[in-house]
Amino acid sequence: MPYVNIRITKDGATAAQKAELVQGVTDLLVQVLAKNPATTMVVIDEVDTDNWGIGGETVTARRQRGR
Amino acid sequence: MPYVNIRITKDGATAAQKAELVQGVTDLLVQVLAKNPATTMVVIDEVDTDNWGIGGETVTARRQRGR
Amino acid sequence: MPYVNIRITKDGATAAQKAELVQGVTDLLVQVLAKNPATTMVVIDEVDTDNWGIGGETVTARRQRGR
Amino acid sequence: MPYVNIRITKDGATAAQKAELVQGVTDLLVQVLAKNPATTMVVIDEVDTDNWGIGGETVTARRQRGR
Amino acid sequence: MPYVNIRITKDGATAAQKAELVQGVTDLLVQVLAKNPATTMVVIDEVDTDNWGIGGETVTARRQRGR
Amino acid sequence: MPYVNIRITKDGATAAQKAELVQGVTDLLVQVLAKNPATTMVVIDEVDTDNWGIGGETVTARRQRGR
Repeated sequence: MPYVNIRITKDGATAAQKAELVQGVTDLLVQVLAKNPATTMVVIDEVDTDNWGIGGETVTARRQRGR
Repeated sequence: MPYVNIRITKDGATAAQKAELVQGVTDLLVQVLAKNPATTMVVIDEVDTDNWGIGGETVTARRQRGR
Repeated sequence: MPYVNIRITKDGATAAQKAELVQGVTDLLVQVLAKNPATTMVVIDEVDTDNWGIGGETVTARRQRGR
Repeated sequence: MPYVNIRITKDGATAAQKAELVQGVTDLLVQVLAKNPATTMVVIDEVDTDNWGIGGETVTARRQRGR
Repeated sequence: MPYVNIRITKDGATAAQKAELVQGVTDLLVQVLAKNPATTMVVIDEVDTDNWGIGGETVTARRQRGR
Repeated sequence: MPYVNIRITKDGATAAQKAELVQGVTDLLVQVLAKNPATTMVVIDEVDTDNWGIGGETVTARRQRGR
């Protein structure tokens, strides 16, 4: 009964892409650890680039600098 | 000083229902573990059904299939 | 299909107390939001008092000061 | 390669303030634990006051009572 | 720069299996969302069965009942 | 009343270093957002290097390769 939380920046992931993530992560847990897919949960959080930092600056700022 | 995070699908929970969850979880921690309610935090996250998966598919997809 | 994460300091909560928390939180979500208990997950994290801070100091330090 | 999640109530924090948090937390981890800033992530979640509880009531309710 | 948190019950997952999870989830995010693997983090939490509940009871209790 | 979760690899951070993190993060939230330190929580999770992945491999594996 795993719980997986995927956090990504809010960049327009489509419903189809999110469905692929859910299926892919669930399949992986079945294959690697023989987990029961019926009770495997996957929750995706999409985070504004102002609210995500790496390297000491926000993703918004990094992108403005062209990175 | 517990911290509780409740994650549910975004399905129109009202402010009154959320207040009930906050009070109910806080009371439970007081009763079972004698925790101090003044420093007990409860945070509720409401997640889009496109972003929540179980059984390898999103809740949006499950509901479309009538489950 | 809610997911609930309860984080408490590691202070000797017994298996019976944890079972009470699991049941109590699950019942609450059924009562307040009519959630399906079969797919309601509750995960309890017990955290060392050196690793938990409030008011700018660790719980270990607070307790040494008699608070 | 630390991961830091800061959760605050949604009260109009500006992009500049969030950038200050990202930089401040990253600097702290460099200073205290000599962590590599390039792989230090900081994610800020802003939570509606209806969804945040403390002392058994929501922040919305506390503020209505003048606290 | 995604962050993924995988929470599973503590049931003896080996270092090799964890490495497979890390690689599999990272590959999935590259394939589905073209994320940069260099800044993709995966953190696995292994949780005692006394601390994991589903269906209103702990995993420990469920297993004792033969489920 | 912020809640901050700092996740780092388990590499022997001392109680004094953790206390410094707690104080530093709390001070930062007071300075940047005028948060109330009395209800600011900081929780530090120390994660085994087998359980932390970046760049598609675990930290254990990276270090064995001399990175």
